[in-house]
Amino acid sequence: MRNFDFKNPTKIIFGKGQIAKLKEELPENAKILMLYGGGSIKRNGIYEQVKEATSGFEVVEFSGIPANPEYEVLMKALKVIKEENITFLLAVGGGSVIDGTKFLASAALYEGEEPWEILTQKVPTTKAMPFGTVLTLPATGSEMNSGAVITREETKEKLGMGGPGLFPVFSILDPEVIKSIPSRQLVNGITDAFTHVLEQYMTYPSGAYLQDRFAESIMQTLIEVGPKVLNDPSDYTAASNFMWSCTMALNGLIQKGVPTDWAVHAMGHELTALYGIDHARTLAVIAPSHYRFNFEAKKEKLAQYAERIWNITEGSVDHKASAAIDRTEEFFNQMGIDTKLSAYTEDYHGTAEEINKRFTDRGWTGLGEHQSLTPANVEEIVKMAY
Amino acid sequence: MRNFDFKNPTKIIFGKGQIAKLKEELPENAKILMLYGGGSIKRNGIYEQVKEATSGFEVVEFSGIPANPEYEVLMKALKVIKEENITFLLAVGGGSVIDGTKFLASAALYEGEEPWEILTQKVPTTKAMPFGTVLTLPATGSEMNSGAVITREETKEKLGMGGPGLFPVFSILDPEVIKSIPSRQLVNGITDAFTHVLEQYMTYPSGAYLQDRFAESIMQTLIEVGPKVLNDPSDYTAASNFMWSCTMALNGLIQKGVPTDWAVHAMGHELTALYGIDHARTLAVIAPSHYRFNFEAKKEKLAQYAERIWNITEGSVDHKASAAIDRTEEFFNQMGIDTKLSAYTEDYHGTAEEINKRFTDRGWTGLGEHQSLTPANVEEIVKMAY
Repeated sequence: MRNFDFKNPTKIIFGKGQIAKLKEELPENAKILMLYGGGSIKRNGIYEQVKEATSGFEVVEFSGIPANPEYEVLMKALKVIKEENITFLLAVGGGSVIDGTKFLASAALYEGEEPWEILTQKVPTTKAMPFGTVLTLPATGSEMNSGAVITREETKEKLGMGGPGLFPVFSILDPEVIKSIPSRQLVNGITDAFTHVLEQYMTYPSGAYLQDRFAESIMQTLIEVGPKVLNDPSDYTAASNFMWSCTMALNGLIQKGVPTDWAVHAMGHELTALYGIDHARTLAVIAPSHYRFNFEAKKEKLAQYAERIWNITEGSVDHKASAAIDRTEEFFNQMGIDTKLSAYTEDYHGTAEEINKRFTDRGWTGLGEHQSLTPANVEEIVKMAY
Repeated sequence: MRNFDFKNPTKIIFGKGQIAKLKEELPENAKILMLYGGGSIKRNGIYEQVKEATSGFEVVEFSGIPANPEYEVLMKALKVIKEENITFLLAVGGGSVIDGTKFLASAALYEGEEPWEILTQKVPTTKAMPFGTVLTLPATGSEMNSGAVITREETKEKLGMGGPGLFPVFSILDPEVIKSIPSRQLVNGITDAFTHVLEQYMTYPSGAYLQDRFAESIMQTLIEVGPKVLNDPSDYTAASNFMWSCTMALNGLIQKGVPTDWAVHAMGHELTALYGIDHARTLAVIAPSHYRFNFEAKKEKLAQYAERIWNITEGSVDHKASAAIDRTEEFFNQMGIDTKLSAYTEDYHGTAEEINKRFTDRGWTGLGEHQSLTPANVEEIVKMAY
C-alpha cells in the first residue's frame, strides 16, 4: 500500500425528503446564487422544493448551464456573482452544474488575469467561495470531491481543475430524484460511476487489499442495481444504492494508497470535445480497447476482477483477464451503450491521429498508472475503438 | 436504505515515515499537551519521532493514561491543561489514549460543574479543544471518529460520549508501529475491529447493499491479513491493511443508512468494568451468545455473512446462519481468544444478574437494533457466555 493523505470534509445529507434540510445548512445572511441547467428541475418538482427550502434567504438564479459546462456561459455567471455580491453558491443539478459551480467558486476569488488559466496552468484551488449542492443526477461523484472538468467550445478543449478548496460544504442526495431521470441519463450515470472505479482499480496489484475490496463492492452494487434502476427508476432501494455508489466511486476513498490510471478519461474527454458524445459513452468506447492494448500490464488485476466481479474462475490468468474485458463490454452493451466510436459518428477517420496530435502538442507523454503511454500508443488505442 | 447524514472531517496521514509530517499539521504557536500511556512509545522509537517532529513547538507531556482511560487520571491532565494554558492536544497512543484525549478536549471547554456529567448526562460535544493523534495501536477506530469511552474506577462505570466537536483534526497512521506491538494487543485489535463491523452489520436486511459490501470488505480483509500480522508483524502489506481496516471499521461510513446493534459492546463494557478483561476479549465472549440468543431476528444477515465471508453456501438459512456463528467463534479461538467468561475469571457466578441489575438501574430497556432487548434478556445472554 502506498502512503496517502485523505481528507474529505463534505457533509452528505442522504435520503427521502432531505432537500427541506437546505435551510439548516445554508449560512445565515448568505446571498445565494442558485445555479441549474436546462430547466428539468422545473418539471420534476426539485425547483419548488429548493425554492421552498430557501424562502428565508436572498436568492439569485442562474440557469442554462449546459452538459459539459461551458466556459463562456460560466463567465456570464461570474459576472452575476460580482455584480450581485453573492456570498454562497448553490448548485442544483448533476455533475455539469456542480463542476461549473466549482469553477465559479474558484474563479470568484481568483486574482490572476483570466480565470481560464486555472485550467491551463493547473492552478490548485486552496480557497474558494463556499458552495453546496443538491444532486439531481447521480454519476460523476462531483458532489463529494474537489475536482471539476470544464469545456471551452471556442478551442474544443475539456480540462480538469481541483484543489482542497473545492469540496462542497454540503451535498443533499435524495434518491427520489431518480424516478424522473430519462433512462439515457441513468445508463450514462451507471457507466460513468463504473468506469470511475475501473480507473482507480484496473492497474496492477499494490497490496491495497481493502481498497480493492471497496472498489469491487461498488462495482458489484452497480451491477446488481443498475438493471433494476433502468427497469424501474422508482425502486427506492435500487435508486439509493445507485446514488450512494456513484458518490463513493469518486470521493477519494478508493484511490488512496493505490496506483490510478485515468487514461480512459483523458482519451474520452477528447471524443466529447470533438464530437459531443456523452461523457460516459466515451469511457465505454475507450475502456475495452485500453485494457486490450495494455493487457500485459493489467492482466493480474483483470484476472482478479474476472474472479471477484464476474465469477470467471476457470482457466489461466490470460484467459480470465481477456474474458473479463469481453464481459465488461457486454455489460455496457446490455445497458444499450455502444462501445465503438463508429456507432456515434461517421466522421471517425483521423480521430486517433488528431488525438495523438493534441496530446503531443500539450506535451502529454506519460499517461496511465506507469506514466508510460505515449501519444502514439493513444493513437493505437483510439483506432482499436473505431 | 435509511436516511442519513455523514460528515467526517478528520485528515488521515497514512504510511511509512509519516510521523515527521506532524510539524506541518500542528497549528502555529500552539502550546501542546502531548498525552501518552505507559511508556511503550519510549521503547519503540515513536517518542523520539514525535519529539523530533514537534521540536519547534512548546510541548508539555502527560504520561500514564491507562488502558480504559480512567477519569481520576484524566482529571489530573485537565488540571495541567488549565495551569499551562494548553491550546492543542496531541494523543500518541491507541484507543485509550485517544479516547482520554477526546474527553479532555471536551472537558477543557465544558462549562458545567463536574466533567463526569458529560458522560452521565450524555452531553453532546459540539465544541472542543482541537487535537490530533499519532496512532500506535490499530483497533478502536477512535483516530477517525468522534466517540470515546471513559472508565471510572470509583464507581466501576464505563460510559460513552461523543459529538461533532470530537473528530481529531488529523491522525497519523504509520503501519510500521505494528512490528513493535505485542501479539496479545494485535489479537485484541483484530477482534475489536472485526466486532465493530459485526455491530453495524449483523442486524437485518435493510436494502443497504453497498454498506453491506463495504462491511464485508473489512471483515474479509481482517480475516486475510489478521493471521499474517500475528505471524509476522513486520509484514508491511499485512500491517497496512490491518491498520486501515481498523480505521474504516468505525469511522462512521459503514453505519450510515443501516440499523446498528451495539448490544455486544454494552454488555462487554460491563465485563471490563467488573473484571478488567481486555475490551476486545469481552466482545468475543458476548458476540456468539448474543447471536445465538437473537438468532431469529438476525438469521438472514447471518446467512448472508455465512455465504459471503465464510463461503458456507450449502443448506438452509438456519443452517448457514448457525454455522456462521460457530465459524466466528472459531476465528476468535484460532487467534488465541477465549470466548467463554469462565476462561477469564473463576468469579463469574452472578455476573449476569449483576449486569441485569445495572442495566435496570440505568433504565436501559431497549438494547439492540430493534430496541427490544430487556435487562432480563441481557442476563440470559451473559449466562450463555459463561
